[in-house]
Amino acid sequence: MNQVDENGRLRHLLTLEGLSREQLLQLLDRAQSIVDEGADRLLTATAVCTLFFEPSTRTRLSFQRAAQRLGADVLNFEAATSSATKGETARDTLKNIEAMGVRGFIVRHAQDGAVAALAEAANPGTALINAGDGRHAHPTQGLLDMLTLRQAKGDLGGLKVLIVGDVKHSRVARSDLHALRTLGAAEIRICAPASLLPEGEVTAGCRIGDDLDAALEGVDAVMMLRLQRERMEEGLVASLDDYHRDYGLTAARLRRTASDAVVMHPGPMNRGVEIDDDVADGPQSLILKQVANGVAVRMAVLEALLAP
Amino acid sequence: MNQVDENGRLRHLLTLEGLSREQLLQLLDRAQSIVDEGADRLLTATAVCTLFFEPSTRTRLSFQRAAQRLGADVLNFEAATSSATKGETARDTLKNIEAMGVRGFIVRHAQDGAVAALAEAANPGTALINAGDGRHAHPTQGLLDMLTLRQAKGDLGGLKVLIVGDVKHSRVARSDLHALRTLGAAEIRICAPASLLPEGEVTAGCRIGDDLDAALEGVDAVMMLRLQRERMEEGLVASLDDYHRDYGLTAARLRRTASDAVVMHPGPMNRGVEIDDDVADGPQSLILKQVANGVAVRMAVLEALLAP
Amino acid sequence: MNQVDENGRLRHLLTLEGLSREQLLQLLDRAQSIVDEGADRLLTATAVCTLFFEPSTRTRLSFQRAAQRLGADVLNFEAATSSATKGETARDTLKNIEAMGVRGFIVRHAQDGAVAALAEAANPGTALINAGDGRHAHPTQGLLDMLTLRQAKGDLGGLKVLIVGDVKHSRVARSDLHALRTLGAAEIRICAPASLLPEGEVTAGCRIGDDLDAALEGVDAVMMLRLQRERMEEGLVASLDDYHRDYGLTAARLRRTASDAVVMHPGPMNRGVEIDDDVADGPQSLILKQVANGVAVRMAVLEALLAP
Repeated sequence: MNQVDENGRLRHLLTLEGLSREQLLQLLDRAQSIVDEGADRLLTATAVCTLFFEPSTRTRLSFQRAAQRLGADVLNFEAATSSATKGETARDTLKNIEAMGVRGFIVRHAQDGAVAALAEAANPGTALINAGDGRHAHPTQGLLDMLTLRQAKGDLGGLKVLIVGDVKHSRVARSDLHALRTLGAAEIRICAPASLLPEGEVTAGCRIGDDLDAALEGVDAVMMLRLQRERMEEGLVASLDDYHRDYGLTAARLRRTASDAVVMHPGPMNRGVEIDDDVADGPQSLILKQVANGVAVRMAVLEALLAP
Repeated sequence: MNQVDENGRLRHLLTLEGLSREQLLQLLDRAQSIVDEGADRLLTATAVCTLFFEPSTRTRLSFQRAAQRLGADVLNFEAATSSATKGETARDTLKNIEAMGVRGFIVRHAQDGAVAALAEAANPGTALINAGDGRHAHPTQGLLDMLTLRQAKGDLGGLKVLIVGDVKHSRVARSDLHALRTLGAAEIRICAPASLLPEGEVTAGCRIGDDLDAALEGVDAVMMLRLQRERMEEGLVASLDDYHRDYGLTAARLRRTASDAVVMHPGPMNRGVEIDDDVADGPQSLILKQVANGVAVRMAVLEALLAP
Repeated sequence: MNQVDENGRLRHLLTLEGLSREQLLQLLDRAQSIVDEGADRLLTATAVCTLFFEPSTRTRLSFQRAAQRLGADVLNFEAATSSATKGETARDTLKNIEAMGVRGFIVRHAQDGAVAALAEAANPGTALINAGDGRHAHPTQGLLDMLTLRQAKGDLGGLKVLIVGDVKHSRVARSDLHALRTLGAAEIRICAPASLLPEGEVTAGCRIGDDLDAALEGVDAVMMLRLQRERMEEGLVASLDDYHRDYGLTAARLRRTASDAVVMHPGPMNRGVEIDDDVADGPQSLILKQVANGVAVRMAVLEALLAP
């Protein structure tokens, strides 16, 4: 599925992979201008639908707020309370809601590539936004992370950025990695236990290690990932205590970074596991800023895909 | 419950039974004009509530979109997450939400006649729309089916229409049958295994059989019904494979119809059971057209009942 | 948590305890004017969120309708379908949704004091409305009860009011008691079995008894409370039949009150347990009036906290 049409215009937002620096900057610049000056209600009388085959209240609310601010009408579909339980395919669900006159779909799905597959089935004029598919991509999270980094640090060109945690299963990490590379981060480090490191291309060009103290030395930004509790049941992590001891971001550890380093987390946080309270709520934390930027980034994406 | 007041004006929409040809045509004509030209936001500041005692995401979304397009405020009530679980009666639920200033209710209920019973309890000025009650009626589905047929075929007067499947348990079939008779379809055929045929008046005047190949000969429209999987557990159908062999609409079978025959299905479809992919997605299928018309029909009904 | 700022302006509405007579009357007067004349859409472009850690469809719908009438954008969060299940704290949930630009929160929580604790975490400019916390407070219910009483009886000064039922576990009763005292009810009676009477200050100044016939003599208003079925499982009530025999409000019993006495209930009702049908639906019942007033009271509160 090519998310960009023959004229280079974005038709869907499925992944940050393959988007050019100019395309990313255009979205970030528009999001920043929304943060600074607000936006007109360009989507009045346009209907968008949150189509979630995997539950996520925060992401849904953020997109819903973005759509509301643009004046769009919002419909919500959640698989748990839907005809998905009557055996209808995701594709039929999409085609049906599309036939109701909905032009934008915000789609979350548990399987890698499921959103791109649905986009193949969409009519011209219908836009899909990937709100997370399996471990594949979460492009608006990647964009909001870049917007947040840029607000704090200016141009990303010279930055050393560290990603800590379960990169193997993280769509957030994959989208961040694509964006960081395209925007030219000086150095990307990854720190995780071997069991949570992905194979293949994902981490190409990154400095990889399993020693958090070493990895933190001199970085400008630390992006923590959520540790899903399933990882213990799967035997990939021994215990939450062990994980916190080896990979938890504490105030003491944070002192190893550049003194003006910033801390980010996509939420929801496991406080006391991957991040301590005094870091999460401390002066270097940009975590709530990320959430605020999320609405602006999603407005910019909805506008880019749907505005007349 | 009389859904029409002493002046012949529609107060509620509970069933298509008993509505005159003129009343049906008026709703269809208005729906068609909405399809062609859109509609004004006549229900601004009017509140409507989807009151679903049985879950149905698609029907709820269709009504919700219809209400949004008319500018109405929408509230959603679903019994599963409600004080229905605290033992409150459906009538008390209705009266309470009505007291909050809601003027239109879109009601789905598992029991035949439940929506009419609730309409008895409503204040003058409050309108109920039956969004499906038991096996009794689903009037907006009947209307959208007629609108779709009329768009494809013009006047319904000369048409031969075949309904295939579980007529016994289908509120869709009952509403379609009332409308087809009132609008003067030339011939109505029904094809189903004996176990899925209703007793009594429902099929009066129809040509009934259990041989699908024969039933398809020369018809202008085929309306397929969904096979609920419960029918197997109840022993009314031997297996999905058997059902598909005997009553599934395949491309080969479809060739027995008039060459310009159309195929309809109320959704959600069981692909490979009552209908094959190449029929559902083929050139004769009006299935997504039905969905699109559903929004327009529901707008026409909401307007007729609630507009100032 | 002080819900009033240094200038005496209401910042949150957490409880009616400690609000002055003037503050209560100001909210009631504004609600009455909304009942009489409607309200402008003062909250256009303002976002409010129903943040329910305990389910309640009616209260949510009432607040949602109030917010809609003021032109606000509404987001809904329910813990059951949320990242609460991913172990996020209620505080993090609030802070995140606040970061999305939401200015008003309507919060329900199963624990006493939970809403005040969340209010401590809110930014200046963010307002919380307690929509029920444990057995502690349900201030908008208290206000709507007072508005309803005042409409029926004029000034509350001379009134004898009886509260019947599970005062021990009732946040409604606590909020009503605070308001009745502040507004100067002449006499407050409480009637309940000993097992359902609270200890301590709650009932200070009230005339308490367990004989309903005696308690009803000459009162101007009877406020019935809902009997939660859990009380039986906890052994606090022998059976629903016993409860009805001793504490159920029947038409016969109601004759013991002043002839123009009014009957109230916060809903949802257990018909045939704490209240009989002919009382609930009879001429002295103000139960649906309470529901209607609920929307106006909530509009008045939302305006007071959030309007520019």
